[in-house]
Amino acid sequence: MSAPFSFLTLACDPGTAARRGRITTPHGSIETPAFMPVGTAGTVKAMTPEDLEALGFEMILGNTYHLALRPGEDVVRRLGGLHRFMGWERAILTDSGGFQVLSLADLRTLSDDGVEFRSHLDGSLLSMTPERSMQIQEALGSDIVMAFDDCPALPSDRPRIEAAVRRTTLWARRSREAFRKEGRALFGIVQGGDDRELRERSVAEIAAIGFEGHAIGGVSVGESAGLSRSIVALTAPLLPQDRPRYLMGMGTPGDLVEMMGLGCDLFDCVLPTRNARNGTLFTSTGRLQIKRREFLDDPRPVDDTCACPVCRRFSRAYLRHLYLAGEILAMRLNTLHNLHQYADLMRRARSAIEAGRYAEFAAGFRSRWADQRPVDEAGRPWPRRHTAGGRKIAGEVIE
Amino acid sequence: MSAPFSFLTLACDPGTAARRGRITTPHGSIETPAFMPVGTAGTVKAMTPEDLEALGFEMILGNTYHLALRPGEDVVRRLGGLHRFMGWERAILTDSGGFQVLSLADLRTLSDDGVEFRSHLDGSLLSMTPERSMQIQEALGSDIVMAFDDCPALPSDRPRIEAAVRRTTLWARRSREAFRKEGRALFGIVQGGDDRELRERSVAEIAAIGFEGHAIGGVSVGESAGLSRSIVALTAPLLPQDRPRYLMGMGTPGDLVEMMGLGCDLFDCVLPTRNARNGTLFTSTGRLQIKRREFLDDPRPVDDTCACPVCRRFSRAYLRHLYLAGEILAMRLNTLHNLHQYADLMRRARSAIEAGRYAEFAAGFRSRWADQRPVDEAGRPWPRRHTAGGRKIAGEVIE
Repeated sequence: MSAPFSFLTLACDPGTAARRGRITTPHGSIETPAFMPVGTAGTVKAMTPEDLEALGFEMILGNTYHLALRPGEDVVRRLGGLHRFMGWERAILTDSGGFQVLSLADLRTLSDDGVEFRSHLDGSLLSMTPERSMQIQEALGSDIVMAFDDCPALPSDRPRIEAAVRRTTLWARRSREAFRKEGRALFGIVQGGDDRELRERSVAEIAAIGFEGHAIGGVSVGESAGLSRSIVALTAPLLPQDRPRYLMGMGTPGDLVEMMGLGCDLFDCVLPTRNARNGTLFTSTGRLQIKRREFLDDPRPVDDTCACPVCRRFSRAYLRHLYLAGEILAMRLNTLHNLHQYADLMRRARSAIEAGRYAEFAAGFRSRWADQRPVDEAGRPWPRRHTAGGRKIAGEVIE
Repeated sequence: MSAPFSFLTLACDPGTAARRGRITTPHGSIETPAFMPVGTAGTVKAMTPEDLEALGFEMILGNTYHLALRPGEDVVRRLGGLHRFMGWERAILTDSGGFQVLSLADLRTLSDDGVEFRSHLDGSLLSMTPERSMQIQEALGSDIVMAFDDCPALPSDRPRIEAAVRRTTLWARRSREAFRKEGRALFGIVQGGDDRELRERSVAEIAAIGFEGHAIGGVSVGESAGLSRSIVALTAPLLPQDRPRYLMGMGTPGDLVEMMGLGCDLFDCVLPTRNARNGTLFTSTGRLQIKRREFLDDPRPVDDTCACPVCRRFSRAYLRHLYLAGEILAMRLNTLHNLHQYADLMRRARSAIEAGRYAEFAAGFRSRWADQRPVDEAGRPWPRRHTAGGRKIAGEVIE
């Protein structure tokens, strides 16, 4: 429980930029590349800590913005920190709250000092600054703390993106100053939108500050999947080799496979958990809408190649029934299945990198997988688009 | 998996009418007295079969009315019956649908033939008769099938209750005729409202038909807790000694303790599961509303004498946070805790009967427990009252 943060590269794939690594934290080690389930409000929705341990996850993501609003970081600190509060003994990475204050909160005022905003829960006026973000994440007791950044939606015009790069660097320095290490790690975030020159500038400025790891921010914020991937392709190779690279908020299975090939080590996305609750299940070959009539009396498991506890015991017909009846158990079983699919994909990817056959692995995945952008319940593209100004997404609370 | 139904009395308490027994079914045996969690729509809400097994439950209750409406008993039969459909390998008792068609459905017409009603799901016109109830329960593959009965709410006038007794006997005979045994058991249900003479008449008529067990119906249908207990106190001793006695739908912990002392062997109630979802948690001394502000940063478990997986890992503060945040995990953890409390109470009661010290056990319980009728989220008495005419309870779907 007391090892300081470290990152070790164990193997590099000869045919791609993929690498096998190991992150050590005060709460255990993480074999990378790794996917982090999103635990917004002190729980990965519908999962217990035992569930996540059994699925093999070694680190989860917590949301600074949500936890600061409810129950408040002081409550979490008094109860021994987020690990103890939620009964999770493995590692926790917390985001900085930057993305949420810009996407969720109302009436924000963005300045070099920070962001003033109104809580999406009760409308109270609050502010977030680099110093405040560090204070909250310290109270939560995160193993990996994220620097506070300015994350504009895409598309945004060049002046907005350039300002975000400048402000992100300013805030990264203030985050670094305010951060108290104590064995934990602080990661810097790179911005720069879809502009090559600004991405290069942001990488240079952030890397110069000296962080324990680096994140690619400003993706999956409204742009197409193709553009997201292009941004990562130009940014990832610029980041220091000897530190973990975390790709923020992007994560269809296809995204993960491609981005691991570009040398990304850490991933998070609400897709497997949120899609589960919407009845969209991942299989080894694509997606399945469990509510469809064709599954009415289908006795097969969701995926007959899947070894998860759901596929071992329950039929598509039963899962369809639970979903249509609005049963809580539907949420739980669908989430278990989707997270198992993600955990399994990452395990197989790590093995392929160790074997020096990642290109072959990725080609096999592409040939099986009918990749498409995910859709929400109404068949609209998901994630929903930010407007150019980064306004709150109507009626939706992002995890 | 193929033992025919049997009931064995293992021990009789010397100071009360409590008895220890064992029911054997094609899906395993049940140590009695036993509490059955309610699995309305093919799932005990928020629980997996593994959860229920780990809690030690040996039989659950399924709802004929709900499953016939959705997904339909033909679907369940095609998928191998309810056990296989929901992945539960232990015993299942199904109710007859009588209570639900009278309490949930709209526009019902009650005659000696049966009940015509409209589905609460889609308004379609359906009918339920003794023969139809047997057909559905056979398709579900229940281990214990309940005869179709006419269950009036309380208060009802004497002619209504007398008609229900007559019709319940008529329907019990038709249920017996239509029932195909195949190792399973058919239980008859006694009605008679709060009228001693009608209860005696109903017991005599139902017992004469020859059922494998008997149930006390027509309680927990709008009357006070005191009246419910009086009805059971006058009815239970009249029921044949050599068959299981099932008290339908009544089940505060205090009810269970008193009614076991009167010789009841089987119980079901939505109280532990529904209260869990409403944030009401049972402890060894009473109830606790988890949303209360006093628990904001309370690091203690719900009950420090409780060995359940929730009390071993989570604080009141965390459970309060999950509940207020509307997290699915709140439903699951609260339900796990409440069902553990019930399972534990029954285990301790069975030990006390074996030791011949049930009166002492019950006295100890009464001295600790601040018994009160449960309340719903709005603080109103629960279960909600039927109106005298047995109309649908506005806006609420009874499990």
